[in-house]
Amino acid sequence: MFESAELGHTISKDVWKKEIPLLREGLLEAQLDLCQSKKFSVIILIAGVDCAGKGETVNLLNEWMDPRHIETHAVRDLTDEELERPPMWRYWRVLPPRGKIGVFIGTWYSAPLLENVSGAIRNAELDQRLESILRFENMLCDEGAVVLKFWLHLSKDGQKKRLKLLEKDPGTRWRVTDTDWEHYHQYDKFRRVSERMLHFTSTADSPWTIVEGTDPFYRYLTIGRAILAALRARLDASPVAKQDEPVPPLLPSLDNLSLLKSLDLSQTLKKATYERDLEKYQGRLNLLTRDPGFKKLSVVVAFEGNDAAGKGGSIRRIIQALDARQYRVIPVAAPTQEEGAQPYLWRFWRNIPRKNHFAIFDRTWYGRVLVERVEGYCDRKDWLRAYGEINDFEEQMVRNKSVVVKFWLSISEEEQLKRFKEREAIGFKRYKITDEDWRNRERWGDYERAVCDMIDRTSTDIAPWTLVEANDKYFARIKVLKTLCERIEHALGQKS
Amino acid sequence: MFESAELGHTISKDVWKKEIPLLREGLLEAQLDLCQSKKFSVIILIAGVDCAGKGETVNLLNEWMDPRHIETHAVRDLTDEELERPPMWRYWRVLPPRGKIGVFIGTWYSAPLLENVSGAIRNAELDQRLESILRFENMLCDEGAVVLKFWLHLSKDGQKKRLKLLEKDPGTRWRVTDTDWEHYHQYDKFRRVSERMLHFTSTADSPWTIVEGTDPFYRYLTIGRAILAALRARLDASPVAKQDEPVPPLLPSLDNLSLLKSLDLSQTLKKATYERDLEKYQGRLNLLTRDPGFKKLSVVVAFEGNDAAGKGGSIRRIIQALDARQYRVIPVAAPTQEEGAQPYLWRFWRNIPRKNHFAIFDRTWYGRVLVERVEGYCDRKDWLRAYGEINDFEEQMVRNKSVVVKFWLSISEEEQLKRFKEREAIGFKRYKITDEDWRNRERWGDYERAVCDMIDRTSTDIAPWTLVEANDKYFARIKVLKTLCERIEHALGQKS
Repeated sequence: MFESAELGHTISKDVWKKEIPLLREGLLEAQLDLCQSKKFSVIILIAGVDCAGKGETVNLLNEWMDPRHIETHAVRDLTDEELERPPMWRYWRVLPPRGKIGVFIGTWYSAPLLENVSGAIRNAELDQRLESILRFENMLCDEGAVVLKFWLHLSKDGQKKRLKLLEKDPGTRWRVTDTDWEHYHQYDKFRRVSERMLHFTSTADSPWTIVEGTDPFYRYLTIGRAILAALRARLDASPVAKQDEPVPPLLPSLDNLSLLKSLDLSQTLKKATYERDLEKYQGRLNLLTRDPGFKKLSVVVAFEGNDAAGKGGSIRRIIQALDARQYRVIPVAAPTQEEGAQPYLWRFWRNIPRKNHFAIFDRTWYGRVLVERVEGYCDRKDWLRAYGEINDFEEQMVRNKSVVVKFWLSISEEEQLKRFKEREAIGFKRYKITDEDWRNRERWGDYERAVCDMIDRTSTDIAPWTLVEANDKYFARIKVLKTLCERIEHALGQKS
Repeated sequence: MFESAELGHTISKDVWKKEIPLLREGLLEAQLDLCQSKKFSVIILIAGVDCAGKGETVNLLNEWMDPRHIETHAVRDLTDEELERPPMWRYWRVLPPRGKIGVFIGTWYSAPLLENVSGAIRNAELDQRLESILRFENMLCDEGAVVLKFWLHLSKDGQKKRLKLLEKDPGTRWRVTDTDWEHYHQYDKFRRVSERMLHFTSTADSPWTIVEGTDPFYRYLTIGRAILAALRARLDASPVAKQDEPVPPLLPSLDNLSLLKSLDLSQTLKKATYERDLEKYQGRLNLLTRDPGFKKLSVVVAFEGNDAAGKGGSIRRIIQALDARQYRVIPVAAPTQEEGAQPYLWRFWRNIPRKNHFAIFDRTWYGRVLVERVEGYCDRKDWLRAYGEINDFEEQMVRNKSVVVKFWLSISEEEQLKRFKEREAIGFKRYKITDEDWRNRERWGDYERAVCDMIDRTSTDIAPWTLVEANDKYFARIKVLKTLCERIEHALGQKS
């Protein structure tokens, strides 16, 4: 894989002088088109062996382009706000919005590579990590981002020469660290592992470009041209006529039996039992949040359900047991402008709670496979891929010791009608009922199918769905509280 | 000041039971109106003596209101991202946008109060800190926020009783800490200092409400009603007919002499000198960023100037000397939706750099007193108060060891015309010239006056303006680089 990058590629000064003005003008023009059209975002990764010129390349890119619309992110020590979130949070928070370019130096590949070479993780774990990187990059591409990955290569001999050269010059000596020499002594292992990594993570949408790092002119011109070509190709592409892609549809079960239909919605709770249980579970929940082990956890509660199923009421019963300093309730409505310019999961990533905190979502990332699917706000292939992306998202939270608790609050069509009418009648509940609610009601069947598919495809061992029979509000609220307690107890290693 | 809050106020259970449903309905309705109209933001401070029920009060507010549109923020340990910014950054980053309510428990009053009682800061410094809090709150009010401040009071005896009571109950024992008892033993001093603090920071726009904390019913009802009344008053206020407030205008100097007119724009630099100096100062700048002392600094560079004065070109010459990992260029255009729902300085606060980093603003917070003033985008009193607010903003950055360097790039009307025409002629520069540029040009005199006022009112010792004669690009770029170097050297304690 590295053979062509050890041939001693060079570019003469004459060619360089002739080519550079054209390239710069082209890049600037492409960046301007991008910035004005806001068609997509661009993510450029600059990785490679030590001292192969990564930093210099990034500096040059910033010089060539309009620095107001390009931003560089380097891997550095994690801040404590980052340490309390899943590892990818640091990248999500700085993803470029559509119209902008983000340059990542070091990148999400550094840690797995270094850890494997140093022996901290085995190949199997390396593969797992790379697999999850692949899914992340695929998601970015599917969301329309252009992902360009460059690997700067030096031969073993070349790297040694480079290190010596840098050390000789007092102006660059500081750039060579002990770590660089250590890595050099492990060159062969690095080469082997990187090669494997590059093979594994080169995809059709975002292949690696390996660039010989010896001659700066060659390096810069190669990367500059590759970026320009990629930008132009996407900018000039004529819009594809929208057509339903040949994606196999999800078929409902033949016998018309479904998880939702099999719920026993007639279950109720007497007021006295409710009041007793409410106190019991709220007390238990409160105690759990003061358990010493809770400081290492966070809790993400996801509420979905039919309109008027009582999500708000259930949320209130939860927060009554919590300290207001410890939770946030996040209402999910139309995305803001900044959110709309990012991948759809971005606005949920930005709300991942710190340790010792709750984030309670009133409607969630599942909007993608519910309302967006049913109302046709996104293409079929977009919501179909969302199942996997959502599972990834939740897995990352769970690995980071978030307890992810998901509720579907289910009511019957008749109960919903009753509640809608009730809401219209009571003054201060009027805001709870909109024309949209009535419209959604007409598509009851479509939503039901979407819900069943969602549960089938996203109820995982680590983040299961809890279906809540919600015709009776008392019954529903207690089931929610009890489930929440049990899930936290389980995470704390307590027996329920 | 505390006398009325030691009378033993109580509310009977009957009154409580009768009043609460009405209050809750009222609060919910007001919150809904707020949320839909997005007329203003609400900032509620809950402060007071230890164990007077601050936490419980906040929890209850969250229960009463719609938790999706209210958010609670408690003072806790600073994260390292917060530690590297001015102290108020932690509050700016969580200010509620218009339409939402933010509840602050602990608040920005805690630190100065505790530090003064413990003897860490003297009265003079306390006053200074309170003064700056006042300016912050005034700014919030001027920007349309409703700021409600509640102080929960307990008499010395009352506090002792409360602490004992909490300690007796196993369910609440954890809430009483050693610090609480320590504070209790300093009760008299606390009382004295708080009293002074409350007097000092009660203003017409945001007075303190002192609430006796002994009886929870009384406490909750008092605070709940005060909030409701404040919300309703503002929600129901009929829009005031816009009229030019009787603010004294800023008069131009009688002899038509001005800072801008006195600039010698004929200064030039030969190409050879330019190239030599460029290398010299870029090298110097680069070395400065690698000075060990630089790790404790950050640099904020503000660029303003006539259209086409060469801001972009100067910025590029700066970043050529820097590592792309170390700076961000922030272009300032129309605010995003999220930014528009906040005080105008919010979007600059969110971009304050960490230590060891540069933030380079291409156009700045001075837009308020330039384009917004000239084009009438804000009222006269708004841009008039901005001078002081901006000075505060910069002072906070400087105190936090930011080097704040501000450039006004000045060109003549003739030079601008020449450059506009040039830009229209060259393909990839076409984006640099818009209809707006031509329109601005027609108001040359108005802008000139605004610039002179700005410089007179915001060129401070700690954050002075540098006027750059920019008819000659070489001359301007070198002056910018040289100034930047000198300012950083000065901050590092080096002789220039």
